[in-house]
Amino acid sequence: MRQIVLRARPEGSARVSDFEINEVTPGTPGSEEVSLRLLWMSVDPYMRGRMRDAESYVPPFELGEPIMSNCVAEVVASNSSDFAPGELVLGQMNWREEDIQPAKNLVKVPESPGIPIQHYLGALGMPGLTAYVGLFHIGGLNGGETVFVSGAAGAVGSLVGQIAKLKGCRVIGSAGSPEKVTALKELGFDGAFCYRSTSPREALRSLAPQGIDFFFDNVGGEHLAAAIASMNNFSTAVLCGAISQYNQTESVPGPPDFATSTVRKRLRFLGFIVSDHWHLREEFLPIMSEWILSGQVQVKETVFEGFEKAPEAFLGLFRGDNLGKMLVRV
Amino acid sequence: MRQIVLRARPEGSARVSDFEINEVTPGTPGSEEVSLRLLWMSVDPYMRGRMRDAESYVPPFELGEPIMSNCVAEVVASNSSDFAPGELVLGQMNWREEDIQPAKNLVKVPESPGIPIQHYLGALGMPGLTAYVGLFHIGGLNGGETVFVSGAAGAVGSLVGQIAKLKGCRVIGSAGSPEKVTALKELGFDGAFCYRSTSPREALRSLAPQGIDFFFDNVGGEHLAAAIASMNNFSTAVLCGAISQYNQTESVPGPPDFATSTVRKRLRFLGFIVSDHWHLREEFLPIMSEWILSGQVQVKETVFEGFEKAPEAFLGLFRGDNLGKMLVRV
Repeated sequence: MRQIVLRARPEGSARVSDFEINEVTPGTPGSEEVSLRLLWMSVDPYMRGRMRDAESYVPPFELGEPIMSNCVAEVVASNSSDFAPGELVLGQMNWREEDIQPAKNLVKVPESPGIPIQHYLGALGMPGLTAYVGLFHIGGLNGGETVFVSGAAGAVGSLVGQIAKLKGCRVIGSAGSPEKVTALKELGFDGAFCYRSTSPREALRSLAPQGIDFFFDNVGGEHLAAAIASMNNFSTAVLCGAISQYNQTESVPGPPDFATSTVRKRLRFLGFIVSDHWHLREEFLPIMSEWILSGQVQVKETVFEGFEKAPEAFLGLFRGDNLGKMLVRV
Repeated sequence: MRQIVLRARPEGSARVSDFEINEVTPGTPGSEEVSLRLLWMSVDPYMRGRMRDAESYVPPFELGEPIMSNCVAEVVASNSSDFAPGELVLGQMNWREEDIQPAKNLVKVPESPGIPIQHYLGALGMPGLTAYVGLFHIGGLNGGETVFVSGAAGAVGSLVGQIAKLKGCRVIGSAGSPEKVTALKELGFDGAFCYRSTSPREALRSLAPQGIDFFFDNVGGEHLAAAIASMNNFSTAVLCGAISQYNQTESVPGPPDFATSTVRKRLRFLGFIVSDHWHLREEFLPIMSEWILSGQVQVKETVFEGFEKAPEAFLGLFRGDNLGKMLVRV
């Protein structure tokens, strides 16, 4: 079977040559372990951080060892009474066509008629929970605010905007192409702009002349600086990610006049990582499932076909190739 | 009588020549107004912002009009049943040896045996409430944290550090001279450094090798950047002021790697202004009075003698001339 390993730690932007596909012999599951056939693989921006040899909130990938990500798989063989062959499971898995994981690291894919299984890697998985936790549990969105979400066509951003709309907010989003801007408007965004043709600062001046009350940041850099300039008194910024900075090789300056603006306008900046909030998954799943089934939230996915396409899909995240969740169908 | 007016809006650092002392004839109080003889004048860093012709949380001073600040005064004549001649009052007053204010803008100086009246401009006034509100109501200090306070020898900082010590915290402070560093250690600070001879980043590495859990910022700039580098996961920064930036004439870069650090370490940055929290004064006054009377909190004050010294006292704030609260005795 094939596996995909990290061949070299990327300098700056990752390249296809930083990955390697090679052949290995499948192992056999030990006690309380499960053998899995991968069906869907998730690629996510945070994985760039694991390619550095630096301590962070997740340990680094090892050179020559498989990349890991959230995947949906079918149980092939099980030495655990919790899982039977044929069942569909979710969890962090090695990028091997057949992987072995401890049963304790896996959960079953919920059986929800009408919900495609790969949604559990996106709108009903980590990115969906990220949007939900960031808006409500971290940022305390009340409803009715003017919300700006950066990277609004991405897996998290496209949900943030739609959920905020459900709560009566006025929502503005940024994206990386005119096609994505059109898609955001179709999703119900009140304003959207392409940050490659209009600076975030100019766009916000025009789309949110009364300022913004809530900022959900997936991008950092110029987006964050522009948001701060437009943030109203007593407003909140939830910092979820900073994809514009993940390939940086040197320290980058922070938002101009950060301290004076924060004091003068009594701003809040709240960094968070969804893995600290898994316990909210049980609260989140029925709510988001209902939104999806009723059509109130539309799920966007961009799918690369074939196990070997996973590195390309990952690199595509940083080029903005995806509308919604980026996935690989094995 | 004499008054002190704003002659010119300062460019960069304010200068004595930006102020003017001139003679005016005292007025007479109208209905519900009170005539006042100034006894103590407060000078505070936030007043620099009022010298700009820009909208902020307080309106700008007008050219040719008196500077205003918090003062303690004696009632000379009163057209209000709330105040009688001879009583001591607090409030925002014009820098005139005799001022007239509406009675509704004044409060009586509490009668507390053993407490000098000028403390109501400092430890028991705006700076004291700032320290208290920032630590507890904004930052949610639990007690036991490792706390870093910048500008720790100032009116607010010297109280922040002492209060945090009362709550079982380990406290590190920065100040602008070796004498102030000695004073901080005498106040019970666990660590103190002079930022003119040691960079905040190096000092924190050495004084807080395990990192800091709580940052109370009065300074901004390099202090904020250094604090972020030392902040532990899930830690909080309360942004009270940024005195290093108040004289800036151009936009200044924010703390390096702000977005990535904030997400990765799940940091919180909370800007606040004490005037939004005056209602907490009633909760605060008995607590702080008790701390002062019992000797648990020591009050430091630097006093300039003479009404005409007020501009010099104000300028001294930005040179770091003050240990504790900067005051002018009329």
